[in-house]
Amino acid sequence: MNETVRVTAEQIRRLQFQGARNVAIAAIKALQALAEATKAQTRKDFIAELCDARALLFASRETEPLMRNAVRWIITQVEDSDERKVVELAHLVTVSSENFQKNLAASKERIAEIGAKRIWNGSTILTHCHSSTATHVLWKAKDEGKTFNVICTETRPAFQGRISAKEMISLGVKTTFIVDSAARSFMHDADMVIVGADAITSEGNVVNKIGTAAIALLAHEARKPFYVVSELLKFDPATLYGEYEKIEERSRDEIWKEAPAELTVRNPAFDVTPRDLIHGIICEEGIVSPQSVAEVIHRVYPWVFDS
Amino acid sequence: MNETVRVTAEQIRRLQFQGARNVAIAAIKALQALAEATKAQTRKDFIAELCDARALLFASRETEPLMRNAVRWIITQVEDSDERKVVELAHLVTVSSENFQKNLAASKERIAEIGAKRIWNGSTILTHCHSSTATHVLWKAKDEGKTFNVICTETRPAFQGRISAKEMISLGVKTTFIVDSAARSFMHDADMVIVGADAITSEGNVVNKIGTAAIALLAHEARKPFYVVSELLKFDPATLYGEYEKIEERSRDEIWKEAPAELTVRNPAFDVTPRDLIHGIICEEGIVSPQSVAEVIHRVYPWVFDS
Amino acid sequence: MNETVRVTAEQIRRLQFQGARNVAIAAIKALQALAEATKAQTRKDFIAELCDARALLFASRETEPLMRNAVRWIITQVEDSDERKVVELAHLVTVSSENFQKNLAASKERIAEIGAKRIWNGSTILTHCHSSTATHVLWKAKDEGKTFNVICTETRPAFQGRISAKEMISLGVKTTFIVDSAARSFMHDADMVIVGADAITSEGNVVNKIGTAAIALLAHEARKPFYVVSELLKFDPATLYGEYEKIEERSRDEIWKEAPAELTVRNPAFDVTPRDLIHGIICEEGIVSPQSVAEVIHRVYPWVFDS
Amino acid sequence: MNETVRVTAEQIRRLQFQGARNVAIAAIKALQALAEATKAQTRKDFIAELCDARALLFASRETEPLMRNAVRWIITQVEDSDERKVVELAHLVTVSSENFQKNLAASKERIAEIGAKRIWNGSTILTHCHSSTATHVLWKAKDEGKTFNVICTETRPAFQGRISAKEMISLGVKTTFIVDSAARSFMHDADMVIVGADAITSEGNVVNKIGTAAIALLAHEARKPFYVVSELLKFDPATLYGEYEKIEERSRDEIWKEAPAELTVRNPAFDVTPRDLIHGIICEEGIVSPQSVAEVIHRVYPWVFDS
Amino acid sequence: MNETVRVTAEQIRRLQFQGARNVAIAAIKALQALAEATKAQTRKDFIAELCDARALLFASRETEPLMRNAVRWIITQVEDSDERKVVELAHLVTVSSENFQKNLAASKERIAEIGAKRIWNGSTILTHCHSSTATHVLWKAKDEGKTFNVICTETRPAFQGRISAKEMISLGVKTTFIVDSAARSFMHDADMVIVGADAITSEGNVVNKIGTAAIALLAHEARKPFYVVSELLKFDPATLYGEYEKIEERSRDEIWKEAPAELTVRNPAFDVTPRDLIHGIICEEGIVSPQSVAEVIHRVYPWVFDS
Amino acid sequence: MNETVRVTAEQIRRLQFQGARNVAIAAIKALQALAEATKAQTRKDFIAELCDARALLFASRETEPLMRNAVRWIITQVEDSDERKVVELAHLVTVSSENFQKNLAASKERIAEIGAKRIWNGSTILTHCHSSTATHVLWKAKDEGKTFNVICTETRPAFQGRISAKEMISLGVKTTFIVDSAARSFMHDADMVIVGADAITSEGNVVNKIGTAAIALLAHEARKPFYVVSELLKFDPATLYGEYEKIEERSRDEIWKEAPAELTVRNPAFDVTPRDLIHGIICEEGIVSPQSVAEVIHRVYPWVFDS
Repeated sequence: MNETVRVTAEQIRRLQFQGARNVAIAAIKALQALAEATKAQTRKDFIAELCDARALLFASRETEPLMRNAVRWIITQVEDSDERKVVELAHLVTVSSENFQKNLAASKERIAEIGAKRIWNGSTILTHCHSSTATHVLWKAKDEGKTFNVICTETRPAFQGRISAKEMISLGVKTTFIVDSAARSFMHDADMVIVGADAITSEGNVVNKIGTAAIALLAHEARKPFYVVSELLKFDPATLYGEYEKIEERSRDEIWKEAPAELTVRNPAFDVTPRDLIHGIICEEGIVSPQSVAEVIHRVYPWVFDS
Repeated sequence: MNETVRVTAEQIRRLQFQGARNVAIAAIKALQALAEATKAQTRKDFIAELCDARALLFASRETEPLMRNAVRWIITQVEDSDERKVVELAHLVTVSSENFQKNLAASKERIAEIGAKRIWNGSTILTHCHSSTATHVLWKAKDEGKTFNVICTETRPAFQGRISAKEMISLGVKTTFIVDSAARSFMHDADMVIVGADAITSEGNVVNKIGTAAIALLAHEARKPFYVVSELLKFDPATLYGEYEKIEERSRDEIWKEAPAELTVRNPAFDVTPRDLIHGIICEEGIVSPQSVAEVIHRVYPWVFDS
Repeated sequence: MNETVRVTAEQIRRLQFQGARNVAIAAIKALQALAEATKAQTRKDFIAELCDARALLFASRETEPLMRNAVRWIITQVEDSDERKVVELAHLVTVSSENFQKNLAASKERIAEIGAKRIWNGSTILTHCHSSTATHVLWKAKDEGKTFNVICTETRPAFQGRISAKEMISLGVKTTFIVDSAARSFMHDADMVIVGADAITSEGNVVNKIGTAAIALLAHEARKPFYVVSELLKFDPATLYGEYEKIEERSRDEIWKEAPAELTVRNPAFDVTPRDLIHGIICEEGIVSPQSVAEVIHRVYPWVFDS
Repeated sequence: MNETVRVTAEQIRRLQFQGARNVAIAAIKALQALAEATKAQTRKDFIAELCDARALLFASRETEPLMRNAVRWIITQVEDSDERKVVELAHLVTVSSENFQKNLAASKERIAEIGAKRIWNGSTILTHCHSSTATHVLWKAKDEGKTFNVICTETRPAFQGRISAKEMISLGVKTTFIVDSAARSFMHDADMVIVGADAITSEGNVVNKIGTAAIALLAHEARKPFYVVSELLKFDPATLYGEYEKIEERSRDEIWKEAPAELTVRNPAFDVTPRDLIHGIICEEGIVSPQSVAEVIHRVYPWVFDS
Repeated sequence: MNETVRVTAEQIRRLQFQGARNVAIAAIKALQALAEATKAQTRKDFIAELCDARALLFASRETEPLMRNAVRWIITQVEDSDERKVVELAHLVTVSSENFQKNLAASKERIAEIGAKRIWNGSTILTHCHSSTATHVLWKAKDEGKTFNVICTETRPAFQGRISAKEMISLGVKTTFIVDSAARSFMHDADMVIVGADAITSEGNVVNKIGTAAIALLAHEARKPFYVVSELLKFDPATLYGEYEKIEERSRDEIWKEAPAELTVRNPAFDVTPRDLIHGIICEEGIVSPQSVAEVIHRVYPWVFDS
Repeated sequence: MNETVRVTAEQIRRLQFQGARNVAIAAIKALQALAEATKAQTRKDFIAELCDARALLFASRETEPLMRNAVRWIITQVEDSDERKVVELAHLVTVSSENFQKNLAASKERIAEIGAKRIWNGSTILTHCHSSTATHVLWKAKDEGKTFNVICTETRPAFQGRISAKEMISLGVKTTFIVDSAARSFMHDADMVIVGADAITSEGNVVNKIGTAAIALLAHEARKPFYVVSELLKFDPATLYGEYEKIEERSRDEIWKEAPAELTVRNPAFDVTPRDLIHGIICEEGIVSPQSVAEVIHRVYPWVFDS
């Protein structure tokens, strides 16, 4: 096995990359490293190497649909090519990897453009946790000269809301910071909710940081639109075929280090927001209904369903 | 002004008593001290002293309906009496104070008896924050030999859920501990929710620790009964006459000590749970509908409405 | 123990009386028989006899709030009287028993008068199971010359809907008969739902034949008023003090005689309709909100809460 | 029949008095006139005269619960008195009439005091139609120095919203005026809804100007509190006993004078707002839950149920 | 700039065309006139002329998705053609314009055929405002011999409901006419709601005459299906890319000519009906779910997304 | 007309085939028989024969979308072929028929694989009626070694729930059997609901055994996922074009043989479950949102819309 792939898989396992996007980029770069270093003599051997790398990377963490889709796409490019020379196929991996990363960057930019149009002068946006895609939307709106307020939940247990709050403050956005439990009290002050996503399921539900689903319910109760901003490739095709999106459970120490030993401390990292609470998914294809998202992906990225 | 009253009012202002019950008892004892030390020569002067004390105690903290009702009741006893001798009226204060405390203790016991009947073997109860009345219900059920599980939310920012969890562990109850945001994920595992109350309004809504209202909504979404356990005297008659129950706002440092200075940190201590999300209020009169609670108080404690 | 009381308790246990009203009347008559045959020499002994009878009758069946309230009321009359002669107390039992029965009959008549006013010419009423109080309302409306239609569900497993349907046909009412599962399909054709009650809880929920709660939800979904007709004395004070209304589970043979032995057949006789799905309880005091029903009983029958 | 009574009944029939309050006052004054002019020689004859007047006044218009309760109360005073002299009984009518009017005025004042406390600086109140009780609340809030905005619906067909808007403008309140259909679009800008009432039913529902119920639903959808301000004596005891509150149907010309003859034009003056959409009824007894309103009246005005 | 284009744009600005369909046809005809009169010598110049015309027409009114899609489609035909001769390209504009109009007419016919099948004998349809597409459906049902009733709201401020009512009367349909506020009272009598559309957003929401969204909520409350009839080309692709559908605000005089000057009169012409309240969109492709409508357009009119 | 086709159509009319799948297979085999026995000399004549057969088969029963889609597909194959020789076209019918049946079998298998993944160890699945597709999912889960419980409703009037219960018992699954009306009481014990389908409409609603829609509402009330398992070809394209899915009404004797003659007994076989109550449709394409199902069919089986 290629050493970079092995090390990268290990690093992913140890959570050394933050955010779905960075995990995906690390895996892509590992495939590139493999392609550059390959000693395979035949197309068949090269594809076998790639498949081994895929297996290792997929096994590194239960759920990372964006990374899986990235790996899947690059290998599909090779498999679909008629090329027989390994050097050309390796080059194809490089090109595909770069293309994928460009596509990711373009998607983020496109989402920011689209999402920023939803923010009007004087509006207040509530957000939960930290999503670089979501804060990029807010950056874009600010950059366009819009004035708005943001409410950040602190997002226990890891306090990622503090990262969001600091980013907003550094943009010069008037920002309010609350505990997660106060979301209902402050929903009256919000005009909309914007959150990111870790995964999208085939039914149109969204997996995101624990607490997101409750905030969606509170937004619905108060007739405030709840937007998810997400690259379409966060879609997990495994859910189409019946798998539940796995919900990672993290260390009890994140919640309470000195907890009595007899106490069961549960620390799921994510929850599932039902599609009916989501006003729209803001993705690189525009603002789409969550109910149609699987069909959107069939239209735009049909290869996602290939393996 | 009587020194004990003055000091007590100051201590209440500085939050040196924990919980509505302890605040009420401190105020009662201050009235007792005043009665014992009074130098008033006439009924009129004595009542004037009591009224001054009342004004000071009421001013000590925006909202403490139980304390206010206690003070109100004791002074009403004096005002309603035909007695003219100050020594007898002072004695009446002492007796009334003791009666009030006995009534409080009896209510807590009665609520525990009633509430414990709702807990069945093998059931799971989700609770939020720490309420001595609520945990007394659970203690009672355990004491009666019932086996059940408890899910405690940590209850940011002050982590009172840890107190509840430790109490449950010490009772030998199997207990699960989660962040507040995880309440929706674990609502599936709960058979009911039991929380305490800080105040009850005339419309039948319940003021309790921030986050309670969202949990009530989540319980409703999942068709799980949501019970409030509370002495009836947490009812605030001021709400009947139009006042909003004041929501105390506490220090930003409780939430984030190193928060950027430009950040607005908001820390309301309570929120308001709408009556339609409450299955029943478990009080000393039994399990009553929240919609009828003001009429129950008219029947049981009509003097609450006197001043 | 008085023989009639013993036999009656046994007959109640064996379900030889149909309907809450008939069970109550049988118990009342047993107390009358006891009073007529008593050999007690002192008030104290006579009351002891009555209390023994009460214990036996209450033990005969888990839940019969109307019967329990009847027995409770008659014995309260004796206990509250200052009379010391047994013969007079026995007479008091007889008089009280007759009064209670008269009150029951008057309540039924009053409910019919009130309920019939809600039925307009050309309306369609959906009903579930068979309740003599409910069909008496329909009889009254017909008797007043109103023309209306009725939809009866068959009410598995015991098909009591057939009794209702036959009664309606015999009144000359145009009647439609459906399986229980078809209630949602026919809710569009109904203008209101009227059902009886087996018990009313302190929170204002109503215990009635299995299937009632689902029909209430369907009526709510279609914005059709759902009425419960019931004597107030179906209220069960035990629920006020925390007890769950017991839900009788009947024989599996009622559902499927030849069911495979390994199959668990569950046959609860009743379910609990939440108060928020009930438009009004039509009782002898008028049409009252379910949320206020416990306070109505405190006003009209305060002795219900005495024991 | 007394001429004033006869004329007044005729004027009520012809809608020559505007608003439930003015109709009630006219009827009261007619009874006073009857009492002053009576030629009855005996208590019995005087009461018979009063009862005839009642019959005539009640027949003048289908639904006027406040007027009916007023007449009912005055006659009850006479019937309950032991006095036998007609001159004294006539005096009693005068005194009772004045008392009733004083009570009405005091209720309106009390409601304004209570309601005004719910209005905070900077808040926006949406109102429908014109209710002198509702605008008195707003006047009171303004009089107390509060700054707030009002949104008035025009209230077709009779455009009473224009009266409300003019009153608000004359108070110096910043006011927005919209068509009835735009209520949902502007609900986002409102912090609460305040409307009056024409009648209150025993189940706790409120009869008010057509369109009120839809606005209540829209407020509920947007989690905005919906208040009804009303004297308790708008309660209609006939609804307790099964009668539907009659919904007056007014002339088609109010809607469309040149409507084609074949067109059925329907013009119901009122609709019924379900209790579950009402946050609270602001009445002279305070802010009460609609579910408990019949019990509140039993406590405060028990004579309402007498006839 | 071509004179017809200039004049047409001006006429559109001045609202001299009634209804989205007529605005679209006027713009199409302006392009035809431009093509017939063009003096362009090169393909490039001709396309530039078309683009200038597009800019002018698009600027004429904030929102007219059907007109914009029409213009977009015709210009796309030219741009996609390989033809270089201006005369041929001009002819292509003519042909495309005619085709577009034929397609519009065919869509209307197709919608009528499909929609009419939903109407059954004896049913009652509630409609709001006037939509020629909606009344064409009703005409078709009548033409097929069906008997049904219609309820028309008057539709303030411009009373377009009167146009609908007159059309229905002239068809011989039994029609009821009500104020907008009475929709909830008459929803019980309706079997379904049918309305038109001004625009459809990418999330599947529908922009239509002010008041539509509230009626949709009322239909939902009463479990009555709410249909939107609309050509798919009312879809506004700008919403996909984040733009809010602009809501035109019209003159205050339409509402109240003599309104006090200090009064803010707001007159938005449209509101947005959320997709979850819409049973189905009846379009030329059949009855589709609103959630899928953007994908339907991707399938049928992919060029809509091109510019 | 071919004799087998004639007989088969008659048998379908007489309900001699059980289940949509078997009806479809019978019709397919009839077409095969026609193809084998055809005496047609020309392509045109052969197609005419097929069209006659189609007309007869379609007329045999109001609603059988699967059968209709099967016939439609086979004939489309012939029509789309360029082949002119009848013997080859007849062979094409045979091949297509076999392919269709294979596809049906594969779909069932695929659905079982996907659906079984949703069932976890220790879960409880509530099901209604008997669907071979649904029980195949449960068989698959059991076959994979999962341990779970099943709750079966008896499914009046024909008691198909007994078939489901027996199948489950024979698989060794712990099974509970209840009357239909008890579904709400046992929903608390269920983790999900799985039912089959008779037809799927273009809006995404599902036609299934009477009672299904109410169970979906109960699942929604209790936040339990409600899955429909169905081959996509149960989609009925006629609904796209406005037709209501016909709801077969069966004999009154199925419900009550000895019903009084004057009684109207209504026995609709199916009801319509609204899409918003359906968590997902588990089909051969995966788990899809009901809102997108028509677009899924456009993608996978576009020929369904051809005729």
